[in-house]
Amino acid sequence: MTLVEGYEELDLALRAGVRPRELYFCPALTGDSDPRNVLDRAAERGAALFSLSRQAFDKAAYREGPDGWLAVVPDIQTDLSRIKVDDRSLFLVCESVEKPGNLGSMLRTADAAGVTAVISANPVTDWGNPNVIRASKGTVFAVPIASADSEEVVHWLAEHSVKVVATTPDTEVLMADVDMSGPTAILVGSEKYGLSDRWLAGSHTKAKIPMFGQVDSLNVAVSAALFTYEAVRQRMAAGHH
Amino acid sequence: MTLVEGYEELDLALRAGVRPRELYFCPALTGDSDPRNVLDRAAERGAALFSLSRQAFDKAAYREGPDGWLAVVPDIQTDLSRIKVDDRSLFLVCESVEKPGNLGSMLRTADAAGVTAVISANPVTDWGNPNVIRASKGTVFAVPIASADSEEVVHWLAEHSVKVVATTPDTEVLMADVDMSGPTAILVGSEKYGLSDRWLAGSHTKAKIPMFGQVDSLNVAVSAALFTYEAVRQRMAAGHH
Repeated sequence: MTLVEGYEELDLALRAGVRPRELYFCPALTGDSDPRNVLDRAAERGAALFSLSRQAFDKAAYREGPDGWLAVVPDIQTDLSRIKVDDRSLFLVCESVEKPGNLGSMLRTADAAGVTAVISANPVTDWGNPNVIRASKGTVFAVPIASADSEEVVHWLAEHSVKVVATTPDTEVLMADVDMSGPTAILVGSEKYGLSDRWLAGSHTKAKIPMFGQVDSLNVAVSAALFTYEAVRQRMAAGHH
Repeated sequence: MTLVEGYEELDLALRAGVRPRELYFCPALTGDSDPRNVLDRAAERGAALFSLSRQAFDKAAYREGPDGWLAVVPDIQTDLSRIKVDDRSLFLVCESVEKPGNLGSMLRTADAAGVTAVISANPVTDWGNPNVIRASKGTVFAVPIASADSEEVVHWLAEHSVKVVATTPDTEVLMADVDMSGPTAILVGSEKYGLSDRWLAGSHTKAKIPMFGQVDSLNVAVSAALFTYEAVRQRMAAGHH
């Protein structure tokens, strides 16, 4: 199960089709937000509703300055073992990406591009983080997501014969020259350090975005999007996406 | 002239080749930062150095919790009238983009992609904002930038026969189907509202990113990057970029 805190976050979850199991709210805190909008939809989907006193709610809430809304929803993450791999699978693997804004942006891209799943390797920020939910515009509830140790992800990708493409400036290979039409995982690293040596060494292919400026790196969510859409372009050109 | 506040921001400016005119620092505030690193480079480039008391520095600084570093540098913006347009020009025009992280990310992309200039139309966030400087990794000092009213930008683009491509989900035209090999301006809108009607109506072409998911919009810095690199791809394929 996953906790979803906050009115806006809960609204995004409901829009994405999530079925909360339990919904806790605190009338002393909910202020301007329209309670019926959330309560009715949650109840329709079978959620048990609980009105709490301020004292009780403060104990239940994790976040600072709670706004009076908290829901228990089915786990938003899936196990790697439950993700199906086929000839057209496209994965986005992010190693220790830290900023919620970047994770949220990557989820929006993954949703838009029809990515099979987004996998967080050695995660440092939780998928359920309220800032991730908001930055993702709710797509965190729509895109299949998983988290695992890097070891486990490497093993799982190898087991399913997924081509592993590491994004790094330290190569002469351009992303357009890498065939990403078969089952492919695109790897991006953390904001500060990029991909770790362990991933760079274990990847089938290193590829880069063509760059003509002073700096040698792009924002991680931008890199992820450019590679993901290069894969989409190849697949559309081949008539399957 | 532009004010650059903060040690990290100043370091990024110096790395990008900026020549500060005046550098104010407050030994009572600079703490752990290595003063020589910044002072020596600024002095070498002809900056006048001023050591200030805490009281004097607090008056000079704009930002809350100043870290003891403040520089006056030549204006980081240029006038539209000074930007040269030729057959290969590529502009990124952002209308009222608000978040410093997005503006910074777009500047990194513009630097990497070799964009001619980034133009802020009806700006709401200043290019000199410390969060923009940091998010841009200093590329705000490397990429030509300008700001102007939308009217003025529209007029300037028309005057120079620049093809105006508006990014919007409300069209059937895909970005790959738009010829961006000649002088082109890619337009992106604000985080909340996208492009205003005035820009949508005044654009030669509306185009979208192919999307296959639940949501109909991407992060603005991601949209800007995908369009910009589509233009780069077309130009590389034609042998000129």
